[in-house]
Amino acid sequence: MSDITVVLPDGSELSVPEDATVEDAAYEIGPGLGDDTVAGVVDGELVAKEDELHDGAQLEIVTDQSDEYLDVLRHSAAHVFAQALQRIHPEAKLTIGPPTEDGFYYDVADVDLEESDLEAIEAEMAEIVEADYEIERVKRSREEAFEQYADNRFKREILEEEAAGQDPVSFYRQDDWEDLCQGPHVESTGEIGAVELLNISSAYWRGDEDNETLTRVYGTAFESESDLEEFLQMREEAKERDHRRIGQEMDLFSVPDVTGPGLPLYHPAGKTILQELENYVNELNREAGYEQVETPHLFRTELWKQSGHYDNYRDDMFLLDVNDEEYGLKPMNCPGHATIFDQSSWSYRDLPIRYFENGKVYRKEQRGELSGLSRTWAFTIDDGHLFVKPEDIEREVREIMELIFELIGHFDLEVEVDLATRPEKSVGGDEIWESAEEQLREVLDSGGYDYGIEAGDGAFYGPKIDFSFRDALGRSWDGPTVQLDFNMPERFDLTYTGEDNEEHRPVMIHRALYGSYERIFMVLIEHFDGQFPLWLAPEQVRILPVSDDALGYAHRVKNELDGFRVEVEDRDWTVGRKIREAHDDRLPYMIIVGSDEEEAGTISVRDRFEREADGVDPEAFREHLKAERDEKRIEPDFLDE
Amino acid sequence: MSDITVVLPDGSELSVPEDATVEDAAYEIGPGLGDDTVAGVVDGELVAKEDELHDGAQLEIVTDQSDEYLDVLRHSAAHVFAQALQRIHPEAKLTIGPPTEDGFYYDVADVDLEESDLEAIEAEMAEIVEADYEIERVKRSREEAFEQYADNRFKREILEEEAAGQDPVSFYRQDDWEDLCQGPHVESTGEIGAVELLNISSAYWRGDEDNETLTRVYGTAFESESDLEEFLQMREEAKERDHRRIGQEMDLFSVPDVTGPGLPLYHPAGKTILQELENYVNELNREAGYEQVETPHLFRTELWKQSGHYDNYRDDMFLLDVNDEEYGLKPMNCPGHATIFDQSSWSYRDLPIRYFENGKVYRKEQRGELSGLSRTWAFTIDDGHLFVKPEDIEREVREIMELIFELIGHFDLEVEVDLATRPEKSVGGDEIWESAEEQLREVLDSGGYDYGIEAGDGAFYGPKIDFSFRDALGRSWDGPTVQLDFNMPERFDLTYTGEDNEEHRPVMIHRALYGSYERIFMVLIEHFDGQFPLWLAPEQVRILPVSDDALGYAHRVKNELDGFRVEVEDRDWTVGRKIREAHDDRLPYMIIVGSDEEEAGTISVRDRFEREADGVDPEAFREHLKAERDEKRIEPDFLDE
Repeated sequence: MSDITVVLPDGSELSVPEDATVEDAAYEIGPGLGDDTVAGVVDGELVAKEDELHDGAQLEIVTDQSDEYLDVLRHSAAHVFAQALQRIHPEAKLTIGPPTEDGFYYDVADVDLEESDLEAIEAEMAEIVEADYEIERVKRSREEAFEQYADNRFKREILEEEAAGQDPVSFYRQDDWEDLCQGPHVESTGEIGAVELLNISSAYWRGDEDNETLTRVYGTAFESESDLEEFLQMREEAKERDHRRIGQEMDLFSVPDVTGPGLPLYHPAGKTILQELENYVNELNREAGYEQVETPHLFRTELWKQSGHYDNYRDDMFLLDVNDEEYGLKPMNCPGHATIFDQSSWSYRDLPIRYFENGKVYRKEQRGELSGLSRTWAFTIDDGHLFVKPEDIEREVREIMELIFELIGHFDLEVEVDLATRPEKSVGGDEIWESAEEQLREVLDSGGYDYGIEAGDGAFYGPKIDFSFRDALGRSWDGPTVQLDFNMPERFDLTYTGEDNEEHRPVMIHRALYGSYERIFMVLIEHFDGQFPLWLAPEQVRILPVSDDALGYAHRVKNELDGFRVEVEDRDWTVGRKIREAHDDRLPYMIIVGSDEEEAGTISVRDRFEREADGVDPEAFREHLKAERDEKRIEPDFLDE
Repeated sequence: MSDITVVLPDGSELSVPEDATVEDAAYEIGPGLGDDTVAGVVDGELVAKEDELHDGAQLEIVTDQSDEYLDVLRHSAAHVFAQALQRIHPEAKLTIGPPTEDGFYYDVADVDLEESDLEAIEAEMAEIVEADYEIERVKRSREEAFEQYADNRFKREILEEEAAGQDPVSFYRQDDWEDLCQGPHVESTGEIGAVELLNISSAYWRGDEDNETLTRVYGTAFESESDLEEFLQMREEAKERDHRRIGQEMDLFSVPDVTGPGLPLYHPAGKTILQELENYVNELNREAGYEQVETPHLFRTELWKQSGHYDNYRDDMFLLDVNDEEYGLKPMNCPGHATIFDQSSWSYRDLPIRYFENGKVYRKEQRGELSGLSRTWAFTIDDGHLFVKPEDIEREVREIMELIFELIGHFDLEVEVDLATRPEKSVGGDEIWESAEEQLREVLDSGGYDYGIEAGDGAFYGPKIDFSFRDALGRSWDGPTVQLDFNMPERFDLTYTGEDNEEHRPVMIHRALYGSYERIFMVLIEHFDGQFPLWLAPEQVRILPVSDDALGYAHRVKNELDGFRVEVEDRDWTVGRKIREAHDDRLPYMIIVGSDEEEAGTISVRDRFEREADGVDPEAFREHLKAERDEKRIEPDFLDE
């Protein structure tokens, strides 16, 4: 039997027999590692330690010290849930039960579950964990597998599709219970340190609205109770900060069913924040040499055919018929911008041309997936498109990176950067891809950016740099993007005249600084818990007269703060209640005035951290506000020591 | 025979016999007037002098001194055209040929006409005018009329519809030619002092796209050659100023067929102007206590059913199907704003609530009527909606009027104001209509506004004040509007809690300051001939170095003008050519710099009126620019004596 070679994470090569498994390879590296092996990552995919390797495989051994271990543990926890469920409801049909970022879920059918049933299932799960059953991989012939699932249409479909051609197929068994499964799993149910069922929702079989509705039970599992506690606390905090909840409390936006799902209405307070976000990006764009354009929301589908979106995006587009011609709402702004570029003739001296538009786009997501501002049908991209000479890519991308980091710096969000490179299927020649990737790498390296590589994850039309935000609760959100595009300039036959007097093809760069306003708005609401920095706060200062006698002075102080968003609280309340209300309304600052202040011509200032100072000169406060706002400081700092 | 009474323009009453005609009444007033009578205006409608009067008719006698005389003359000119056409092309079928604001047209069928044919027809028309044929009204039985039009399907349709029940019907005859026609006409073809055919286009029979396509010949006529000359000159000027032409020259916008008819794309220069217009209106709105909101472009048609637009506007709406539910692009912003209002509960202390949005709306006009920015499918309204207590209407409308006049004052446009009152069909009780109309009148009277009354021309849901602009060429355009609405608050069941703790119904006020951005943009392009005031000019200053040696200084001067839209002309041209180009590009100012200026640290300033000054201090120029821009002055005045 001949040997095969696998590549280890440090780049070294290991020679193993042709039928060697992940576990065999681990023993080959060292007997200690062999004993500790839980699973493997082969070519980026998590696999069972019993799986055989192939020549040239990229191999990483997973032990209980690996990042991937939690996924394996949660996958086993899903099995424990399923076993417990079937102990109580033998009629329940299992479908699939994968680990997720936060835990696991299992989709089940033919059983009626309510949140109140979860406690009993959890108790049963605790017994299974307590019993510490060995978890064992079992191979069965396809025939046996089909017999075993004679009454489970879902598993039979999996056997026919995902497991097509496999014989034998793999099951995992614990105690007297087993499940069709590729694994991997931990050694025994006792390894699951802490497990909790979270909630029930519904899901479609294979995520398709036309299929049967299943019951999805979400849970999570950790190695220890303390990890679970920390997670649950964070989850509670996230619920408290849910942007839909805060959005309603602060009257920022609504998504009423009568006007349509996924189509948010922005109320004055929400629009104020959006407008500040937009003003800032407009200012940055103008300073960076971008020119604003405006395109409609409706276009003939001819345009989407030309751009290629019609072929790839049609199902997500809102299409309509007008005088027997097909039109579509724009899912992207780029073809409109390419059309504007195409209306003029350009010389190399004119390039780069940089257009931007705060353009509202429409994409038909599944109704069931719509939620608050996190997934909508209508959303506004702070969309920029550059038409550049290929040799200018590096400079332009560098400037965009600087813009993005300047912008994000004002939100106290951590940012992660990934370079996504050429995928298997792509348009454009080797030369331009190599040069483009090289230029992007150069930007990232010379700029000292910490970045990951997503090999082969670029768009088919060009490589890209993706950004994600990590918020105050440690959650990650898609953020801005910079994408090179060699395809659209071809499709629109865009050209410029070079110094050589020949026609050349520009490269198009798609970029957004925020990504979408809906996304950044949602992230910021939750990140700041609605306690927006001064420059974004819908109401920046509220003036609280201690009694009606001070109302006149309160209004005079308000006038002195002209240019800020200031209200006078003139309701007939005690000053204590006025203060509480202003805190609940998440005001950065409140000003308290009574006869003492009026006589002295001063104000009392209180901030959202409940710090207070008396005898403040209104003009000094005003100057501070101006600086705090214009510098976009994160927290009210007038009362800092 | 008993007498009837008619009312004359001065309010006096005249008693005439029951079968008296317009002419009879004129003779009753005085034999001179009787001899001069050309036609009459009865109850607001132009009628023939032979037409009989009815009891209570409002009567005005039309002589050749009346405003209406030109309409009568042009109607006769249309007959002269038709007669001339049929002398040359006896096969031509006549349909209708009315007077218009600028002249007349005649729609004809079964004849092939080109612009080049017009000269021969004009020559024939000149002969008919020269011959001074008497124009005579002739009555024929319906039977005779149908026989006469045996081969004219259009006239037969008119006999069946417009002239249904009339027997005899009225014809007008001149020489041996006649036409089915209600009149009125002048006495003889010789009265037409000057006539000219203008152009040919196509039109649908009865304006309906499903009907036969006709050939429409446009012409005009005047009492004198000099009036015609003046008109033609103005028309030439209007052609020069056509916003589509200037829009292309200045690269402001395009409406490419590939992206869709009536769906304008705004290029950077155009968007700059739009953005300045928008910034200004946003500022005015905020100062006036309006809060900005944002609503999507797509809504479930449930909303349009609730608002009533679905019943009345459906044919003009872009409708689409999403998951078997009907949705529509918004033709108006008001239901979205009413929905936002409806998300909260309001007390009398909160009112008035004033929302505004620069909202792009979509209305499906006939494709054939789309033209540049003057008629589009997509347009953006600077839309405001107020929710007010009925007793506050007067104050709110007064403030809106002041806003409108403040805004319009910056454009050097004349404004006409009309109050449109309760129509026959209306919603809302007598009391609220009377009070509302009274309050609007009070605003107009006490504000000293010069206004007309359009009796019965209000919307069915409330009275309104309409504004129209008169531009530099004397043309009139629809402008802003202020409409009271008693209907939508009912339909959305909008309420506020009054001081009496009861629920009350607010009145809604719809208002726009510009009307639509597309309309004001078009009007301003043509009004200013593309020579925009400094604050609107896409490029405000261009710096022309006399040679490449002065390029460095040119850029330093540019930096000193930071905050303005300034370009350096760095092409390798003579300074003469640079100046000509800057004039062609309609720049308000250009700065010329050479070694003299560089040494002295000064600049030469030239304005669009070709005035020039040397040795100008750049700082002084900058200060002037700032004032000229911020005060929104109409013309560059740095070089005023």
